[in-house]
Amino acid sequence: MLLLWKNICLEIIFQKEEKLKIIMFTERKTIKEVEEGNKLSPKFNSDGYIPVVTTDTKTGKLLMHAYMNDEALRCTIEKKEAYYYSRSRKCIWHKGATSGFIQKVDKILIDDDQDCVWLQVTVSGDASCHVGYRSCFYREIKYDGKNIKLVFTEKEKVFDPDDVYGDAPNPTIL
Amino acid sequence: MLLLWKNICLEIIFQKEEKLKIIMFTERKTIKEVEEGNKLSPKFNSDGYIPVVTTDTKTGKLLMHAYMNDEALRCTIEKKEAYYYSRSRKCIWHKGATSGFIQKVDKILIDDDQDCVWLQVTVSGDASCHVGYRSCFYREIKYDGKNIKLVFTEKEKVFDPDDVYGDAPNPTIL
Repeated sequence: MLLLWKNICLEIIFQKEEKLKIIMFTERKTIKEVEEGNKLSPKFNSDGYIPVVTTDTKTGKLLMHAYMNDEALRCTIEKKEAYYYSRSRKCIWHKGATSGFIQKVDKILIDDDQDCVWLQVTVSGDASCHVGYRSCFYREIKYDGKNIKLVFTEKEKVFDPDDVYGDAPNPTIL
Repeated sequence: MLLLWKNICLEIIFQKEEKLKIIMFTERKTIKEVEEGNKLSPKFNSDGYIPVVTTDTKTGKLLMHAYMNDEALRCTIEKKEAYYYSRSRKCIWHKGATSGFIQKVDKILIDDDQDCVWLQVTVSGDASCHVGYRSCFYREIKYDGKNIKLVFTEKEKVFDPDDVYGDAPNPTIL
């Protein structure tokens, strides 16, 4: 009896999720509709990801660039907090779940051909980078015609990654 | 004699380019160096591309998201104008070559794991989107808990794409 009840529940959840998928994402039929229509028809790449650009709502500053799969995009739209897909860990990743630096989503935009998402967020704790900086883009590329070097634009870290992440594997891949 | 001279010239150019490659991009050896060093070691994906986020220097607004291959990144660094790699046309693409909307590069930044580039640019003509808008991100995703729709954030186009691009194929892929 318990098993039957569990199966019924799972079926309802499944149907609800399927319905949600249909409502949220529309099939890409024509270029005109994709570029100038009012339906959300995101294009996930051959691996199932869409790139995401995340900026700070108040300062406008670029915080990070990451990826979502369809589930992460649906979660982000529904819950108004940023969910990404971690390509190194191969799972959905609720930003801030470990560090506490949750990204509250203020606005979500999509580009002309709907293959990139722009999140405007407010960050709890003021850091978005796993290395400890406010923004992942903390180094400027300087080139004088002969030599090239990276120059730091943030002077100090907001937090110590060892304290926050402990022994968790570093997501950076060589 | 002429052929010999041509070959010598080509060899000098080739050596110069090879040298330039070595100076510009350094091998990715350790995570520590990639994340906290001052050497440029960009990570191109398995197709040879790196994603690029382009914002307007003055307003800070996100203009577009595109890709570069190693040659496009080198050209951009050297020439201080934005060069991308067109995945649909499979070639280097000097932004504005057809439309006149050249992007003068004011700053180039790179992210923590060096797999994304941020360009801060000043655009001639004030448009960056092939559909005719200022930004490619001219639609916001609105969700009321039941229905989802895209709402335009730019009221009118800066230019008519038919006038500017004529019969050139649309880069959007379904």
